[in-house]
Amino acid sequence: MKFLFASRVSNMPAFSVRSEDRRQRRESWISLAEELPAEELFPLSQLGEAAGTVFSAGPRVLQYGEVAGSLALREWLHTRWKQDQRLSVDPANILLTSGSQQTIDLLVRIYVNSGETVLVESPAPPGCLQVLHLQGARVIHVACDEQGMIPESLDEMIRLHRPKLLFVSPNFGNPTGRVWSLERRQAVLELCMQHELLIAEDDAYGDLHFGSEPVSSFRQRYPTLFKLDRDQGGNHVLYIGSFSKTIVPALRIGWAAGDDRLIQVMSAAKQTADWQSSTMNQAILLRLLQSQRFDWGSHITMLNREYDIRLKLMLELLKRPNWRGTEVEIPIGGMFLWAQLPDQLDGEALLSRALEKGVSFLPGARCYASGEGSSAIRLNFTHPGRDELLLGMNLISEVIAEMRQENS
Amino acid sequence: MKFLFASRVSNMPAFSVRSEDRRQRRESWISLAEELPAEELFPLSQLGEAAGTVFSAGPRVLQYGEVAGSLALREWLHTRWKQDQRLSVDPANILLTSGSQQTIDLLVRIYVNSGETVLVESPAPPGCLQVLHLQGARVIHVACDEQGMIPESLDEMIRLHRPKLLFVSPNFGNPTGRVWSLERRQAVLELCMQHELLIAEDDAYGDLHFGSEPVSSFRQRYPTLFKLDRDQGGNHVLYIGSFSKTIVPALRIGWAAGDDRLIQVMSAAKQTADWQSSTMNQAILLRLLQSQRFDWGSHITMLNREYDIRLKLMLELLKRPNWRGTEVEIPIGGMFLWAQLPDQLDGEALLSRALEKGVSFLPGARCYASGEGSSAIRLNFTHPGRDELLLGMNLISEVIAEMRQENS
Repeated sequence: MKFLFASRVSNMPAFSVRSEDRRQRRESWISLAEELPAEELFPLSQLGEAAGTVFSAGPRVLQYGEVAGSLALREWLHTRWKQDQRLSVDPANILLTSGSQQTIDLLVRIYVNSGETVLVESPAPPGCLQVLHLQGARVIHVACDEQGMIPESLDEMIRLHRPKLLFVSPNFGNPTGRVWSLERRQAVLELCMQHELLIAEDDAYGDLHFGSEPVSSFRQRYPTLFKLDRDQGGNHVLYIGSFSKTIVPALRIGWAAGDDRLIQVMSAAKQTADWQSSTMNQAILLRLLQSQRFDWGSHITMLNREYDIRLKLMLELLKRPNWRGTEVEIPIGGMFLWAQLPDQLDGEALLSRALEKGVSFLPGARCYASGEGSSAIRLNFTHPGRDELLLGMNLISEVIAEMRQENS
Repeated sequence: MKFLFASRVSNMPAFSVRSEDRRQRRESWISLAEELPAEELFPLSQLGEAAGTVFSAGPRVLQYGEVAGSLALREWLHTRWKQDQRLSVDPANILLTSGSQQTIDLLVRIYVNSGETVLVESPAPPGCLQVLHLQGARVIHVACDEQGMIPESLDEMIRLHRPKLLFVSPNFGNPTGRVWSLERRQAVLELCMQHELLIAEDDAYGDLHFGSEPVSSFRQRYPTLFKLDRDQGGNHVLYIGSFSKTIVPALRIGWAAGDDRLIQVMSAAKQTADWQSSTMNQAILLRLLQSQRFDWGSHITMLNREYDIRLKLMLELLKRPNWRGTEVEIPIGGMFLWAQLPDQLDGEALLSRALEKGVSFLPGARCYASGEGSSAIRLNFTHPGRDELLLGMNLISEVIAEMRQENS
């Protein structure tokens, strides 16, 4: 029969529909393309122990649960925020989801009509753009630099496009890994308060801060927009958090925090979308977090130390001759390096040829709604081990050298 | 700030937005309202063992995985279909989801534009109606009787409304527990083939068949529309399956099976919605299904024997004087009894008063898009234990008696 897909399907980028077969072939590749944490750093044995305890506590945890998710886990989040950031968020203002991708999807479904404008950073996370495209939103990029979003550009875009939502990641955002300055945070929040523009703040990478300073002290110097807003009694920010990058992705646990009414309507959408996330997985995570054998702070410190080593290795490799002319901003956290290719080489063309050599990365154009970023690429440094990183970077640089040769 | 929700939020029924606080108070109630399986029948120790094995096999299973879900689990589904129903479905035509609610949501998102018509049974599952409302679909009920959907009514509604999709559950569907006759299955499929109308067949309750006949022999007498269609080489049916009712809900594992193109676009929507379901949970389930200590057939037989006992008890209780005049169809499987209250009592009014006594059920009006079913109720018999069932049914019947007294 002839299938008559909904018109929104035509808004989905072709690569997202094709991506399936890519992923299936991942085994044979070195992937610097994806947002994968390092498996060898997972708290595997502690999670296994936590699971054992959960299963021995009886069948209740395998039943359907609350839409909002485990109250005890939401209380843990409440406590951690209080301790680390002196921020008080009632567990009723938290909705557990199946990860930040779902949180973004739920928010956009309940807040953005087809044809309405959403402002995003330049560049923006591909997963977020995918949601916005499927929902038929008009996506407008706001100019950004190394200090974060540029307030003058934001002000102009707000006046010009009367947007419904602003999507940002001020801490180590995908794909640039940038950290916004405090001034920019304050200025952006101020503008959004003035124009009653809802902010979605994705902080999924927020704890991945490298360097000697403890995360909590970094957090004090660079408070989230969510904290800045709440400290003034505001409700302009919907906070998006995740355990996928700090614990493990396969638990599929993230959360949204924000205004009562927003959380309530998102919860109804969550119920419609998949009833609720797994009570079992939430119980296993909670058990891990409460376990004597696991310390959140030390775990995060260990992760960041390891990721910093991988980042430094990648930066070293980028100094090799084949990469000459490539420009990178050096991040102090997160999972990605955002690089501008030399000679305006095309990222998609580079990818096609790199795939033939068995290595992948993300072409920068996928971080823009249209037209821009064609000579940028995003490189993930958290997942590949040392040998993979050496080989993968080498293979990409070979293709770059070949392409430059052909162009000259 | 003033929140400007998307217009589709106004389509969400108020009770779905409110349901959260209901659920939180579930502890203090006897609930005959929900779709809960019996916890005491969960394969708890075998699942615990499966989890232990999975965790000891290394960290890979805690990483992100394929959008389509575990290939091995999709192969298990392929094999079971082949053995039980002589039906051959390529694993590539299966998408693992986080349960049938998500499958329905994904399908409707990619297939139905706002304002387009979707046909459903009379009555229809509340979760499906929730999805259709959120997506802004026009919902039209097709007349049904104890034999299933009435072909003449379907024919009329197709000609009148030019629908995009037909949603049905021919085996023990929610809320009636009816089994469609073979003739009705064939006639409905024939009509949909003729009009190129896509069918979504929810078979989440399909294995819950009571009585002495083995499920596989029942399946042969009452093939799914999916099988009937595929046996003729058709691709008119998107099959919706789930492990929530047969194993445990908290794994959050269901699946869709159907035409290549449909599964491909649904996979892209799945990726947009939540990236993928949990690889960990899929690995635990697969391990259970492959374990020597677990036999799928015996487990289903045990479940059905227990649920049949609970159904019979509920039917006995309905013979008590306070229930006089209540009309029920006696199902031979599923999780629900659909009852018509005497004296056209109002189900919502009955619920308000029953809640005060500490017992809940689902008012029939929630199984219709509008206006109908006000004097019907849906009673779940699988979750409450014997004492709860006795007390719960007694409390409801007391309210019925009081209301009839007041009306007379």
